[in-house]
Amino acid sequence: MATLIDGSAVAARIRQNLRARVDALAAQNRPVRLDAILVSSADETAAHVYAQNQARTCKSLGIDYALHELPAVASQREIVQLIRRLNTDPNVHALMVHMPLPPGVDIYTVRAAIDPAKDVEGVSPANIGAIVYEHTSLAPCTALAVMRLIDETPLAGDAIKGKRVVIVGASDIVGKPIAAMLMGREATVMSCNKFTDDLPALAREAEIVVAAAGVAHLVTADWVKPGAVVVDVGIHRVPVTGDPTGVKLRTVGDVDADSVSTVAGWLSPVPGGVGPVTVAMLLANVVAAAATAAAAPDE
Amino acid sequence: MATLIDGSAVAARIRQNLRARVDALAAQNRPVRLDAILVSSADETAAHVYAQNQARTCKSLGIDYALHELPAVASQREIVQLIRRLNTDPNVHALMVHMPLPPGVDIYTVRAAIDPAKDVEGVSPANIGAIVYEHTSLAPCTALAVMRLIDETPLAGDAIKGKRVVIVGASDIVGKPIAAMLMGREATVMSCNKFTDDLPALAREAEIVVAAAGVAHLVTADWVKPGAVVVDVGIHRVPVTGDPTGVKLRTVGDVDADSVSTVAGWLSPVPGGVGPVTVAMLLANVVAAAATAAAAPDE
Repeated sequence: MATLIDGSAVAARIRQNLRARVDALAAQNRPVRLDAILVSSADETAAHVYAQNQARTCKSLGIDYALHELPAVASQREIVQLIRRLNTDPNVHALMVHMPLPPGVDIYTVRAAIDPAKDVEGVSPANIGAIVYEHTSLAPCTALAVMRLIDETPLAGDAIKGKRVVIVGASDIVGKPIAAMLMGREATVMSCNKFTDDLPALAREAEIVVAAAGVAHLVTADWVKPGAVVVDVGIHRVPVTGDPTGVKLRTVGDVDADSVSTVAGWLSPVPGGVGPVTVAMLLANVVAAAATAAAAPDE
Repeated sequence: MATLIDGSAVAARIRQNLRARVDALAAQNRPVRLDAILVSSADETAAHVYAQNQARTCKSLGIDYALHELPAVASQREIVQLIRRLNTDPNVHALMVHMPLPPGVDIYTVRAAIDPAKDVEGVSPANIGAIVYEHTSLAPCTALAVMRLIDETPLAGDAIKGKRVVIVGASDIVGKPIAAMLMGREATVMSCNKFTDDLPALAREAEIVVAAAGVAHLVTADWVKPGAVVVDVGIHRVPVTGDPTGVKLRTVGDVDADSVSTVAGWLSPVPGGVGPVTVAMLLANVVAAAATAAAAPDE
């Protein structure tokens, strides 16, 4: 049976370390704060619940949380104007924009408007490009989490050089940045998608499979080389099997954990794998941005 | 025998098209200009010859060329200050920095200082990140040239979806950006390097091989699937075989063209392949940057 990579434990260790750094910054009269922009949407309740959870998580580490709400009718221009105002506000050092944005708003324009030094989700083009240059910077949190979890396995650090990694899915802020990070580590990186011929056979040759396709239970045991590392990035809510009411839901990933865990050597499960580490990486970026702002001279 | 992809002919077509666009901008009283920074180095003659050739190439398209020279003792701070001055100069719309830079100067810092809207070599982190987002932008010229040459083959456009592409070499401004561009095209992208196990066998399964390793004649016939597309990005000066004086040199690539052309379906040769198209792509970026500046309101 595969060893489960305990993302919750990894996240707890990261948070503990961050708590100490937040306290140290606060002692220098440099409170750490996350500013988040939330544009109201049809699914208003879900977004607010998410923001409230985020505020609570921040508070538990001593991080302040400032939510900037815009009405659902907000235009792209208004969103960008708010970002620009927060970019130049010396009290703001960590800024993120909650998804989804209203229809008609160009996500790229919004992401590109965020000051890269404050972009704690690591989604501005400059921060994505910094990954390609292997430059220490604020990188996308999910991609950072995947790398962090691989580093919990025997393929940590330099051991990954030359190893085959199959990434299933090539999305802009998950699959592609992970690929760029792994190229920086000198792995043999195979970026695959729904057009890839005989993907299971290709995955079966890989020492690492990163499942980021957004398809529940896509990766089954026949995709996995015995002993391989499997990192599950997917997150889906599906009905519980056998529930006659059909209303009970459970969280599953892109990996069919029941079958894959009989073949893989290491498995990052869902829930309890990439998810909590991604949240911890966002907080790590917040603290890093605050520390950088504290180190830079006031302007 | 492989069909040779005629990079010189492709470049000539691009230049013809650019000439018309330069004339159209000039007619709107918007002269097109390339500003280049050259920091003197030990190999001063070579850099100046290159700059003179570049000036001549620009002139042939009606593009002005302004060379900004700094002494070899120029510090990183001085180079960045010059870039910042040119960033804010409304007469400058296309800016590049010649390599190499003096020892001790951080290339990333220099590249990151260039205004992405004027960065015609496409090397600023924001422009590299824009590739990941598939956002129309100024991209690295060599990567653009490789994509342009693939588009001369039957795997042009959508035909590349799901096709296996092996990229040999993962450098920051060639191998990695090409990988990101190909992911955007939904190819199955395999980024390989010197640590990759049995690279010839992997390459032999690919419909496209992009050779960008910086090793002369690395890719031989046994690396190539019959009928595959092979794009040679390497450029090396090697002694002419059989020359008793040993001083005669010829230009070769990363591909052993003699053997590979007996197996490949399409081959982009060296010289006459990626090289001239890369130069044309730089000029295309210059014209694009000038056109964007002309379209934007004066500030």
